Amino acid sequence: MTQALLVVNAGSSSIKFKLYSVNGDDLDLVMGGALDGIGSQPRLKVKDHAGTILVEHDYAVAEISTTEQAQTAIADWLTPHIKDYVIIGIGHRVVHGGSVYSRPVLVDDQVMATLETFIPLAPLHQLGNLDPIRVLRQRRPDLPQVACFDTAFHFGHPELSDRFALPRSLYDEGVRRYGFHGLSYEYVHAALRDIAPDTAHGRVIIAHLGSGASVCCLHEGKSIETTMGFTALDGLPMGTRSGTLDPGVVLHLIEQKGMKPAEVGTMLYKQSGLLGLSGISNDVRALLASDRPEAKMAIDFFCLRVAQAMASLSVTIYGLDGLVFTAGIGENAPEVRARVIEHLRWSGLALDPAANEAPAPSHQRQGNKGRRIDGKESRVPIFVIPTDEERMIGLHTLRLLRQLKHHS
Amino acid sequence: MTQALLVVNAGSSSIKFKLYSVNGDDLDLVMGGALDGIGSQPRLKVKDHAGTILVEHDYAVAEISTTEQAQTAIADWLTPHIKDYVIIGIGHRVVHGGSVYSRPVLVDDQVMATLETFIPLAPLHQLGNLDPIRVLRQRRPDLPQVACFDTAFHFGHPELSDRFALPRSLYDEGVRRYGFHGLSYEYVHAALRDIAPDTAHGRVIIAHLGSGASVCCLHEGKSIETTMGFTALDGLPMGTRSGTLDPGVVLHLIEQKGMKPAEVGTMLYKQSGLLGLSGISNDVRALLASDRPEAKMAIDFFCLRVAQAMASLSVTIYGLDGLVFTAGIGENAPEVRARVIEHLRWSGLALDPAANEAPAPSHQRQGNKGRRIDGKESRVPIFVIPTDEERMIGLHTLRLLRQLKHHS
Repeated sequence: MTQALLVVNAGSSSIKFKLYSVNGDDLDLVMGGALDGIGSQPRLKVKDHAGTILVEHDYAVAEISTTEQAQTAIADWLTPHIKDYVIIGIGHRVVHGGSVYSRPVLVDDQVMATLETFIPLAPLHQLGNLDPIRVLRQRRPDLPQVACFDTAFHFGHPELSDRFALPRSLYDEGVRRYGFHGLSYEYVHAALRDIAPDTAHGRVIIAHLGSGASVCCLHEGKSIETTMGFTALDGLPMGTRSGTLDPGVVLHLIEQKGMKPAEVGTMLYKQSGLLGLSGISNDVRALLASDRPEAKMAIDFFCLRVAQAMASLSVTIYGLDGLVFTAGIGENAPEVRARVIEHLRWSGLALDPAANEAPAPSHQRQGNKGRRIDGKESRVPIFVIPTDEERMIGLHTLRLLRQLKHHS
Repeated sequence: MTQALLVVNAGSSSIKFKLYSVNGDDLDLVMGGALDGIGSQPRLKVKDHAGTILVEHDYAVAEISTTEQAQTAIADWLTPHIKDYVIIGIGHRVVHGGSVYSRPVLVDDQVMATLETFIPLAPLHQLGNLDPIRVLRQRRPDLPQVACFDTAFHFGHPELSDRFALPRSLYDEGVRRYGFHGLSYEYVHAALRDIAPDTAHGRVIIAHLGSGASVCCLHEGKSIETTMGFTALDGLPMGTRSGTLDPGVVLHLIEQKGMKPAEVGTMLYKQSGLLGLSGISNDVRALLASDRPEAKMAIDFFCLRVAQAMASLSVTIYGLDGLVFTAGIGENAPEVRARVIEHLRWSGLALDPAANEAPAPSHQRQGNKGRRIDGKESRVPIFVIPTDEERMIGLHTLRLLRQLKHHS
């Protein structure tokens, strides 16, 4: 029987999963799917490695109203479909490793208790992430489960990049600039190392532009600073999130306008960003397709802020040797890349328009490590590299399990 | 008798004033002073144009516990000392002109009512600014009073620089990136025009670094974007203010930590910034003089954020033709200027160390329009230009009074 790993990426209303077969030190995708719309419009959809749909099934809301029911439904579907594989472990995406975890960790009772102490740092996400770990530890106590953190890649940031300009007591309590999207940055940087090792070793900026978005600067392969700080609201404006804000606005909405803090939170997480700016959509594709001026303004706003973040993070690392775009928007919206780089032309960056506009290769195709899109006059190389957080989790899980086996 | 103008800059716990004699289209400083510590340690201190102390008087707290008492005390002292002058008008600093005033305005009942509607936009400052206008209009109804706004110079920002990534309804309600320190930017830019007209017409960044701090980018003499937005908390970390923040931190402090919004406001305005970072002082001089690592870290943090703001605003104006430092820290802390420019060396900026470290000329000396401090290898000229917001208010007031006379 072929050895395989399951990767689980669970949120509050969806559970994504991927099954990889182990191929030496690498992983081959077998299938990937998601159960979305938990509690609203539950739907299970799974595709094999070639993109063929294996199942697409809608549930009644009453059938899948909790994440535990969703896990049972996935397990029920998966069991007969993975009978040719022996699962050797499960890797989980966990948003927060706090100030404790700088790398993936095998989950035991003590680790689980520690991870639960981070729930106040990211209430919605952390709960959703830990739920399937808890359930799977009960159902399959024989299977090792590995937690991989969105914060870990940023662990050990210099103090200047780790602090807010707030009293130290808050820093000591954990109000730090943890940063997120770390699994994506780690994957993309490893891919960059394969295609441009010298650049990867230098001062690199990676822009992870998806419905959540951040920018990270790296030196010698280490994350130095990133735009997301304590929460996923920080930094760039996103699909529906505000990004960094004048804190006086938050206080004004509560003290002067009389909004409840929870209402402000909902507005900042769900009704702001591209959606709030445009009043049309949170989706860059819809905004690019629209000819309404609000749509153009929202895209221009996003591109300006991305370019500003890139310039700002170049200051942190005293320059720039290479730039990478990744994630949904970064990989698939050449217009956004072009407008961002146009704002940075003064600093010596330029695209090759034909390379930039060439269609993105398929995500699924293994071995697609990305491509260069800079123009001849560009001072530094510019890349588009597809990210794959689940593969990163899978690889981390495989490595950790082998290390543990080696040491046991 | 010589014509003279009084300039008043009133806050919640201090009133600053300057008396200028009219000299053609220009103003000569006669005396300047302040009554500080209203309600705590009231002290009146006035110097003449040469810096000679005319009065230094401590009051009992009970004598000066309100701004109205402070105004009476100033008027009592001033009256015999200005008997050789005929006051032709009074210019006031008013922090907020809202979305209404793009230039100074003669205050009448209707203007006063409009200015009061901006109190919720800047509760502490706007009240303090309007108080002496109200009192002086009652006591001296014969004297024209002119309101000069910190926001006016930024009026008409492009929409991209005027909006937060929030729902449009909030923008329509006035939650906009007004920007502040406008009187300083206007004064400094006029001085730059005198000493380097070509540069002044191009893409310029001015860093107003004082206990309040912001950076502004200009093109063709117009403000395009600035780091302060809706409130004076926004943008750079300051002496005791946090600067821009992850809004999730504000929500965390209220929802998870249980702080009251007013407590959060006090912390962000009074206990953050350099003071919060260092735990030692809000004063750059004290931090530079300290050999404690926290002091060095706070200065480094400030310099990094200033340099990041400069790079970020260069993106907005697609490049840079000249850079200016002004205000207390900007004019008097060569170490800060050196560390800021060190962070921007990659973009082609460099200082002449000797020029940078030369002692700052006296503020008071008229005709000191500033000096260049860039090194030969610098891509753009870099200046130190002393700011003078009160003189700017005086000049605005003089011009407006003459226009009104001309039209009447």
